[in-house]
Amino acid sequence: MTHDPLGLLSASSRAGESSVIRDLLEHAKRPGVISMAGGIPDPALFPVAEIAAAVHRTLDQDGAACLQYGLTPGELSTRMALETIVGRTVDPERVIVTTGSQQGLDLLTKVLVDDGDVVVVGDPSYLGALQAFRSHGARLAPVPVDEAGLVVDAIADRLEAGLRPSFVYTVSNFQNPTGVTLSSPRRTQLVALAEQYGFLVVEDDPYGMLRYDGVMPAELGPGSEHVVRMRSVSKVLAPGLRIGWTEAPSWLIEALVIAKQSADLHTSTLSQAVVSDLLGDRPWFEAHVEAVRRHYGLRRDALCEALNEVFGDRVSFVRPEGGMFVWARVDGVDTTSLLPKALEHGMAYVPASAFVVEHQRPDELRLSFATVEPDRLLEAVTRLRAAAEV
Amino acid sequence: MTHDPLGLLSASSRAGESSVIRDLLEHAKRPGVISMAGGIPDPALFPVAEIAAAVHRTLDQDGAACLQYGLTPGELSTRMALETIVGRTVDPERVIVTTGSQQGLDLLTKVLVDDGDVVVVGDPSYLGALQAFRSHGARLAPVPVDEAGLVVDAIADRLEAGLRPSFVYTVSNFQNPTGVTLSSPRRTQLVALAEQYGFLVVEDDPYGMLRYDGVMPAELGPGSEHVVRMRSVSKVLAPGLRIGWTEAPSWLIEALVIAKQSADLHTSTLSQAVVSDLLGDRPWFEAHVEAVRRHYGLRRDALCEALNEVFGDRVSFVRPEGGMFVWARVDGVDTTSLLPKALEHGMAYVPASAFVVEHQRPDELRLSFATVEPDRLLEAVTRLRAAAEV
Repeated sequence: MTHDPLGLLSASSRAGESSVIRDLLEHAKRPGVISMAGGIPDPALFPVAEIAAAVHRTLDQDGAACLQYGLTPGELSTRMALETIVGRTVDPERVIVTTGSQQGLDLLTKVLVDDGDVVVVGDPSYLGALQAFRSHGARLAPVPVDEAGLVVDAIADRLEAGLRPSFVYTVSNFQNPTGVTLSSPRRTQLVALAEQYGFLVVEDDPYGMLRYDGVMPAELGPGSEHVVRMRSVSKVLAPGLRIGWTEAPSWLIEALVIAKQSADLHTSTLSQAVVSDLLGDRPWFEAHVEAVRRHYGLRRDALCEALNEVFGDRVSFVRPEGGMFVWARVDGVDTTSLLPKALEHGMAYVPASAFVVEHQRPDELRLSFATVEPDRLLEAVTRLRAAAEV
Repeated sequence: MTHDPLGLLSASSRAGESSVIRDLLEHAKRPGVISMAGGIPDPALFPVAEIAAAVHRTLDQDGAACLQYGLTPGELSTRMALETIVGRTVDPERVIVTTGSQQGLDLLTKVLVDDGDVVVVGDPSYLGALQAFRSHGARLAPVPVDEAGLVVDAIADRLEAGLRPSFVYTVSNFQNPTGVTLSSPRRTQLVALAEQYGFLVVEDDPYGMLRYDGVMPAELGPGSEHVVRMRSVSKVLAPGLRIGWTEAPSWLIEALVIAKQSADLHTSTLSQAVVSDLLGDRPWFEAHVEAVRRHYGLRRDALCEALNEVFGDRVSFVRPEGGMFVWARVDGVDTTSLLPKALEHGMAYVPASAFVVEHQRPDELRLSFATVEPDRLLEAVTRLRAAAEV
């Protein structure tokens, strides 16, 4: 419970809690600790020189314009740059630029959720989304996540039993934290349910471009008035720029723009200019993303191999086809109580308990391979095993 | 009323309205129209070359760090850079960097206001603040604004009659839209009331550095646990960077940081790096602000002179000691119905009705002198007079 000496905080703020696990993971920053806990990209991949050049080109061309107050939905060129990410045409009138996808989640919840409205989420889910939903008074309705993503049959059952959600939230590709991808049949089924029962599907897809093998399922309900999509440059260019996009049905855009206006007027035009400049050079961007994929793909391989080699039959996991995470189950351990020991042994991860909404998974954990070099991944897994032996 | 075909929008979003005046002012962008309507700074003053150099220095030094995910309350160097703006030491543990001051208003309201809670505002007030307050369900309690700012006696009366606000909002220096500054005695009185009745004073001060003459009143309640301050670089460096600060009592900071985290994780680290670099060079920054003051001061003088020359006794206004606006009353006109005629005559302003909460001021209007050259100001006022003659 948050401290509130003057009795002035709002209900949602009084309920805000700081996290024990977050506090523990402060120790992951100690020298010598190999951290597989973060959800952050490898800074070695940030195209620093290209970003510097993009800033120069933009400020040289029309510096004053790109430093002035901008349009609330985002500059037209930045909205159009989403085409490079999604690989198809977009209607700029249905796109707003947000301060990272996180802001898209926040604005959308503000615009859709009244106190007590229901939001369906996977269990486990991305924490930042859960926070945004709860902060606007949403009641979370968790449904299981398996190897093929959100279990849509479970949603269908609850709808039949009378559940009427505002929206269903899904990280469709290489979900944070489980690394799984929503299968094509489930995508079709989910959008059909949305249209039947009149709710929205919110597709948050920051990892979709990071596919190392396998085939991308078709986009969720293309053209549906019941699907909202969020995209971001955080995992493919740099998160510090804070540029994301929300692509929404036209009936929803006006409300999002009004919410965005009172939230921050608009997103940094300097960041926007960098992104529209870099995504405007498609051959460069495609080569860059290809290099990012190779870099992370090798790490994914190294981590999967290390887990099998070090833990043998004791570990089980679904090899993710992309993204930044391997979600594993280690027989006979409690991953929450193991964490302090793992830190003592010089490695860090995030236990399932941090992401769980309702259904505990005591022997599961999330391992991020994005920022650790391949040979250090083997070392980290070896340390994890040593911690688990004690 | 916003269109809501699926019946999915939240209560606050359904109430969102687009503004007739905003739509009219789209015409202010036509070629040949001299616009005194905008609340924007003169782009000729943006230090474009220095910003480009700051980006280069930062990316050269440690590009990867400044493009990675950052701290939710803002980078330490950017929080400390607030010292250059306020001219005293600040405790970085009591400061968060926001995506412009607008975000500070939004987060603060989210953290303090439950549906139906009261926020006291000046009448007239800055529209973006009113929007942020209303979007979180605040009930607005307007009090008059006169030549010495918010009429604090009126607040005292309402407190005595039982009003219990969450906070009182004031743009303390060169208020948008009236240009007036809250006097020293009223500052003291307002903070004393806050401490007596247990509410907060929210001081939004984007214009304070733009003083052209007169003496700056002492800061509102220095060290009080009942004052929250907002500052911004939008009027002294460039608004497109979207960098503001909220300085709050320590009991409030944790709740603001939690709200900020779910709102957008953190503000663009690229923008933050530019600002901490430029404000780190105090001699440069002070010379820059001095040049900005001279530039706007001449325009303030030119506008006041033009108004007296062209309208004579028909006009009355308080000559603002700083900021970007002259608020004037023109006898015998209705400024709302005059606007289309003024646009036809090739000038634009914002009628009082756009800023009014409750108490109409039919013959008053806001004139921004920031982006118009001195001789064009005389021309604009002449056109306004021609429109008023018809």
